[in-house]
Amino acid sequence: VLLYDSAISGNCYKVRLLLSQLRIEFERREVEVVNRGDRVELLGDKNPAARIPILRLDDGTHLAESNAILWYLGEGTPFVPSSRLDRARALQWMFFEQYSHEPYVAVARYWLVVQGRDPGEISDLAHLHERGYAALDGMERHLTNESFLVGDSYTVADISLYAYTHLAGTGGFELERYPAIVAWLARVAQQPGHVPIDS
Amino acid sequence: VLLYDSAISGNCYKVRLLLSQLRIEFERREVEVVNRGDRVELLGDKNPAARIPILRLDDGTHLAESNAILWYLGEGTPFVPSSRLDRARALQWMFFEQYSHEPYVAVARYWLVVQGRDPGEISDLAHLHERGYAALDGMERHLTNESFLVGDSYTVADISLYAYTHLAGTGGFELERYPAIVAWLARVAQQPGHVPIDS
Repeated sequence: VLLYDSAISGNCYKVRLLLSQLRIEFERREVEVVNRGDRVELLGDKNPAARIPILRLDDGTHLAESNAILWYLGEGTPFVPSSRLDRARALQWMFFEQYSHEPYVAVARYWLVVQGRDPGEISDLAHLHERGYAALDGMERHLTNESFLVGDSYTVADISLYAYTHLAGTGGFELERYPAIVAWLARVAQQPGHVPIDS
Repeated sequence: VLLYDSAISGNCYKVRLLLSQLRIEFERREVEVVNRGDRVELLGDKNPAARIPILRLDDGTHLAESNAILWYLGEGTPFVPSSRLDRARALQWMFFEQYSHEPYVAVARYWLVVQGRDPGEISDLAHLHERGYAALDGMERHLTNESFLVGDSYTVADISLYAYTHLAGTGGFELERYPAIVAWLARVAQQPGHVPIDS
């Protein structure tokens, strides 16, 4: 398979991490994510949202949206739960990630780290932090009583939320406020086949 | 089952529509969505994102995120595709809906219709329309060649995107620009067991 990828994108890292843990060989094709003016021309025929990651399958078709790619790769393996209710709970966390977490936790990092802005230059940084902390609060409430997000084991839901949560500090979030999240991040990083984002 | 619901929420309507089409009886409990100050207290123990819809299952546990609830209800029925690749394609559209469509198409309607603001009062309405039109452009490109979003039949992906797309006009979007979307909306509304949002 071929991954339309970005080394600095947490959404792309999710896919690289699961491919590594499944020991699936893949080719990476780096796509510029900072200068996005031409992305509909570049990616629009492969993904209606013209975003990466996009996975090109052996039959030449394309699959997009990081969490849908995780689901595709993980189905039939222990990374996607075997019970119907636990599958829905995994998806619940993955939709939470894209709606309530990524637009704040990832976007604060994007402006500060990827674009290199000063905090004072980002007009809505306080809003990003307020909503991002609300997402982290929700994770902390759950992880206070649980080792992983769904059931007793590591799944695609953990991969999905690990990607930007472990980078939240670079977006100005104080992760030390969240002992359950910090312990969960360490458990995720200890899973067999784990690779860091810059590998 | 019990649905924590809002009559005006498209996310809640998705669940009501599929429950109707599956002929599953359910109880509705209306939750105030306009005044959200106390929603962590009200909903935080049922959903880490403290949003509706939330479905209370027969065993007393709760499931949240509209698209995860659709998946749970639809698995094992024709509403969730039977092939692994088509399941991933359905999820691709549902993640597209939550990340690239709902935050713009639904939010423009929210300010104009639910909050009753004048267009001139909404500071980022131009941005909501720009990003919402980009999402509609992506749907139109796909639906120009396809009858439904995934494969040849109506699935949870269509339910997910129908909910706010059919209301886009009330958010100031000119749907008449999109003949393939307009034809798809009519096909969706003709499905057996279809109910309107205000039923």
